[in-house]
Amino acid sequence: MFLEEYDVIVVGGGHAGAEAAAAAANMGSKTLLVTMNLQTIGQMSCNPAMGGIAKGQIVREIDALGGYSGIISDKSAIQFKMLNKSKGPAMWSPRSQNDRMRFAEEWRLALEGIPKLDFYQEMVGGLLIENNRIAGVKTSLGIEIRARAVVLTNGTFLNGLIHIGEKQFGGGRAGEKAATGITEELTSLGFESGRMKTGTPPRVDGRSLDYSVMIPQPGDERPEKFSYLNTPVLEVQRDCYMTHTSALVHDLLREGFDRSPMFNGRIKSIGPRYCPSIEDKINRFADKDSHQIFVEPEGWDTVEVYVNGFSTSLPEDVQFKALRSVKGFEKVKFFRPGYAIEYDYFPPTQLKHTLETKLVENLYFAGQINGTTGYEEAASQGLMAGINAHLKLNEKEPFVLKRDEAYIGVLIDDLITKGTEEPYRMFTSRAEYRTLLRQDNADLRLTPKSFAMGLASEERMKRMERKEQKAASFVSFFRETSFRPEDINPILERLDSSLVKQPDKMFKVFSRPHVTMDHMLQLEPVSRFVEEHDLDREVLEQTEIQIKYSGYIEKEKLNADKLHRLENVQIPPNFDYSKLKSLSYEAREKLNAIQPVTIAQAARVSGVNPSDISVLLVYLGR
Amino acid sequence: MFLEEYDVIVVGGGHAGAEAAAAAANMGSKTLLVTMNLQTIGQMSCNPAMGGIAKGQIVREIDALGGYSGIISDKSAIQFKMLNKSKGPAMWSPRSQNDRMRFAEEWRLALEGIPKLDFYQEMVGGLLIENNRIAGVKTSLGIEIRARAVVLTNGTFLNGLIHIGEKQFGGGRAGEKAATGITEELTSLGFESGRMKTGTPPRVDGRSLDYSVMIPQPGDERPEKFSYLNTPVLEVQRDCYMTHTSALVHDLLREGFDRSPMFNGRIKSIGPRYCPSIEDKINRFADKDSHQIFVEPEGWDTVEVYVNGFSTSLPEDVQFKALRSVKGFEKVKFFRPGYAIEYDYFPPTQLKHTLETKLVENLYFAGQINGTTGYEEAASQGLMAGINAHLKLNEKEPFVLKRDEAYIGVLIDDLITKGTEEPYRMFTSRAEYRTLLRQDNADLRLTPKSFAMGLASEERMKRMERKEQKAASFVSFFRETSFRPEDINPILERLDSSLVKQPDKMFKVFSRPHVTMDHMLQLEPVSRFVEEHDLDREVLEQTEIQIKYSGYIEKEKLNADKLHRLENVQIPPNFDYSKLKSLSYEAREKLNAIQPVTIAQAARVSGVNPSDISVLLVYLGR
Repeated sequence: MFLEEYDVIVVGGGHAGAEAAAAAANMGSKTLLVTMNLQTIGQMSCNPAMGGIAKGQIVREIDALGGYSGIISDKSAIQFKMLNKSKGPAMWSPRSQNDRMRFAEEWRLALEGIPKLDFYQEMVGGLLIENNRIAGVKTSLGIEIRARAVVLTNGTFLNGLIHIGEKQFGGGRAGEKAATGITEELTSLGFESGRMKTGTPPRVDGRSLDYSVMIPQPGDERPEKFSYLNTPVLEVQRDCYMTHTSALVHDLLREGFDRSPMFNGRIKSIGPRYCPSIEDKINRFADKDSHQIFVEPEGWDTVEVYVNGFSTSLPEDVQFKALRSVKGFEKVKFFRPGYAIEYDYFPPTQLKHTLETKLVENLYFAGQINGTTGYEEAASQGLMAGINAHLKLNEKEPFVLKRDEAYIGVLIDDLITKGTEEPYRMFTSRAEYRTLLRQDNADLRLTPKSFAMGLASEERMKRMERKEQKAASFVSFFRETSFRPEDINPILERLDSSLVKQPDKMFKVFSRPHVTMDHMLQLEPVSRFVEEHDLDREVLEQTEIQIKYSGYIEKEKLNADKLHRLENVQIPPNFDYSKLKSLSYEAREKLNAIQPVTIAQAARVSGVNPSDISVLLVYLGR
Repeated sequence: MFLEEYDVIVVGGGHAGAEAAAAAANMGSKTLLVTMNLQTIGQMSCNPAMGGIAKGQIVREIDALGGYSGIISDKSAIQFKMLNKSKGPAMWSPRSQNDRMRFAEEWRLALEGIPKLDFYQEMVGGLLIENNRIAGVKTSLGIEIRARAVVLTNGTFLNGLIHIGEKQFGGGRAGEKAATGITEELTSLGFESGRMKTGTPPRVDGRSLDYSVMIPQPGDERPEKFSYLNTPVLEVQRDCYMTHTSALVHDLLREGFDRSPMFNGRIKSIGPRYCPSIEDKINRFADKDSHQIFVEPEGWDTVEVYVNGFSTSLPEDVQFKALRSVKGFEKVKFFRPGYAIEYDYFPPTQLKHTLETKLVENLYFAGQINGTTGYEEAASQGLMAGINAHLKLNEKEPFVLKRDEAYIGVLIDDLITKGTEEPYRMFTSRAEYRTLLRQDNADLRLTPKSFAMGLASEERMKRMERKEQKAASFVSFFRETSFRPEDINPILERLDSSLVKQPDKMFKVFSRPHVTMDHMLQLEPVSRFVEEHDLDREVLEQTEIQIKYSGYIEKEKLNADKLHRLENVQIPPNFDYSKLKSLSYEAREKLNAIQPVTIAQAARVSGVNPSDISVLLVYLGR
């Protein structure tokens, strides 16, 4: 049925798989996306939202690189918020609520619009491997589909096991079959695999809720969006609502703890620490007698509601009884209970920076199979795997993002260097150069790189250049133009900021803490410049950030440069650390396993100490 | 989790389940729809089309009764055709191509809009039965949900087994799990069950087809629609295309016959005779070396295509090789192969006219579980089961449609009286009074009945009354108004019809074979009447049919009246036929099993002869 060999086969059609397939095909690889059900491409398995703290930055990065997650999110958004707007711009994090059905539909249609991308619906049950090199996949019907590279994005489907209270049954998601065969084959080849756990809250009937006693959570008054392209901005938005659990709710939940698979030992694998189940929260924070619950609509028209914060695998009767005691949920009707799911993952230290496996050439892993959690983490890995699969097949340099270039760089470097024993999610705190990795400049950071290798479109590149040039000229304007004290002092007075006595460059007063672009725009020369140069909201924001945070940004750049010196010290491939007896035993073992590419990466391996790094530097002649 | 008892639980969310749930809830029953996956409500499992010969009439009847299938079809249509327009109006059959995703989405939103309807996602694995009366269902998690009535609409899911060539695996549809437990429970209660088979063609990538060598199949120039309500009329339509198989294609398919589950004995159950697989067609019509294939788009935007006429369970490589030899399919790429599926059904002679089972009180069956095939057949049974479940719970008279009132009446009477050993689909030939059962008058026939029992809305009733009155007054106009020969003769001359010499009633000349409404409208008094009374297309059509076919219609009505006399001869319940020794042995056996309600129904039981009916009539004192 498949007469020709594909360049790339992507297994799975979730966030990782969709981005991987799109990237490889858009770069020119003949690509096939194989999924168990073509009708569930682009499903949001858990909450109907994209972005959030650090994750929103990732979506912006994906977009800057020419991925689709930002575009799809914008097109299917029902609400948009810029989180952390009261903090510095490194913390600003875009987040959207989405229409679940639209999101999947937009993904499906976007993928169908890619000429070099084919589709096939079936479970992949095996891999074709020849001489430690991938050669294709084998479907459950026994069809062999040949390809030069394969990207696995199996999500929670590999031997997925769903738990609700004391009951458990096989499944990749509620109502969907698990996938079998892949894990067994990979472990027989020498791959190490493990089990992880994740969970999801009940879905309920919005018609049964009393919103009048909850706190409305509207979107931003002036909503922004994810994509740097010309996607629509929301004109109407849907509200979310907030409510809280109570001591009573917690007591009711505790009544089910003895039947909880989390506490009675049935689930042994570790769940996402920062997305815990409600029983976990009660258990770990026993002193707190209230937790927030966010009531999120599943779309524009549907009455289905996602109960964010109430993820649980307690018995369904316990879930129900407890949720009925939450304010506004007194008459709640369930669409389905929450559940936990265990699935296979492969510790990501078995991967290279390109997400290619070390054991099997041209085999790539992306998403939950690597032990991550989150749509954004998955999507970005898919994108990078798709890009690198294509580049390698075309004998091009790999595309690896450094830790000071992108959250995606931090994510992948963390995964392959440190591994993870619990579902890994991104935080701003994981990025040592987060002042550089802002949501506002992902295009400036990444679009040129992506354009250069042939993924980001010319339109995207042009938009980036226009923004960059306009912001630069506006910054110069502030550096070069002087204010008159009589113009600026009325503004400073209102801000309770010390007045100025003589003219000076605008840059200087703009740098003061409480002075914002809005204030500067009250000066006639500034507003005239904006008008004459037709500067949009994005350029104003970029200029403001570059001016007000220039000190921090410069400092981080210097730090990053220092790091680069260590990043530039390459370690030869297949380096045998066991011969360096002055290394600690642990360092020798870990370094042999991870095989870092540079000294900087070696320094990040857990268990490797500064003294070990000195030994290495000496040995390498530095 | 379910604190209160429901009035009605509907198991399954396909065409039958959706209509059943909507009808029961709209009539006032507290209703719960339970389905394995809430995201697949309203799925078109097979072709993306509604209606067709006899089936289109059923959709119109469902709409006239206040069901949703017509509305959903209109809202999601991408093409509309009135089939058989060249024949008499009894044969006119509306048919739409539909956007598969939109169709499901519209169903989901329509159901969510019904206040008394709740939803729950889980597999139903058992029934609660107390004293031969249904008391609720039991889910796979073991949750017991109590209800006073239950409607089972399990489709192809009961122990579904999918076949492709020599491979077979459990599943309710491609990529979806089968349902287990129900059949076993019902047979243990004494129900007789059987296996049926159906099939579906490959889905392919429209981008890989060469439409330029196929024959376009556009929609009607002036498309109509299904619903009598104010649903939208299509302004833009998508074309389908026609191509053909060839001797070469047949030869290629024959190469796989030894591996065909249809021919090697693996599939023993019987498939739909009038929707045969391509291998079946080749086998049964060995002299034909070409069959039509209709290439149907799956929606407005998607590239997925349905290969109507190429249903098959041959090995996927054989499907592929053969389809590649079809004109226009030389480079076809598969989204998924065709397959056959076997599933459990319950011979419908075990049901009453209300679709309630004879063995378990308040348990209803609708759709493929009764051995039917087709979305329309399923939807109409669901509607009738939902209505009757509600009526019985409220101690109202059952709602049974007679054979001269609706195709739905014919369908259900055929099922419960004759049973079926192969998937039953509707044809105009099954209806002995098809001249009465037209697509144009389903509202006139059925809306008043439905309105009277509280299902059809007032709006629907008013629209029907308006149409009825306007058509009646227009018919009177033609009966009462005379033409002038000098006005009509030029028209008759063009039609090569004999000229008239003196004035006469318009009715008379309108009755001539080739004279149509369009001709009549050329007469000034006619066009003036239309304008003054604001008559729309529907009223013009209705008037034309009532005038031109009045002879046939009157004759059928007389025949139907005769039948009614026999329909009015009731047979006492639980009548013991074995004591009537003058009945043939076969008649005694069949009649005891079927327990017909009237003499007319008894006459339709297969194996019952006119002489048996005479015996019965004598016994009953007629």
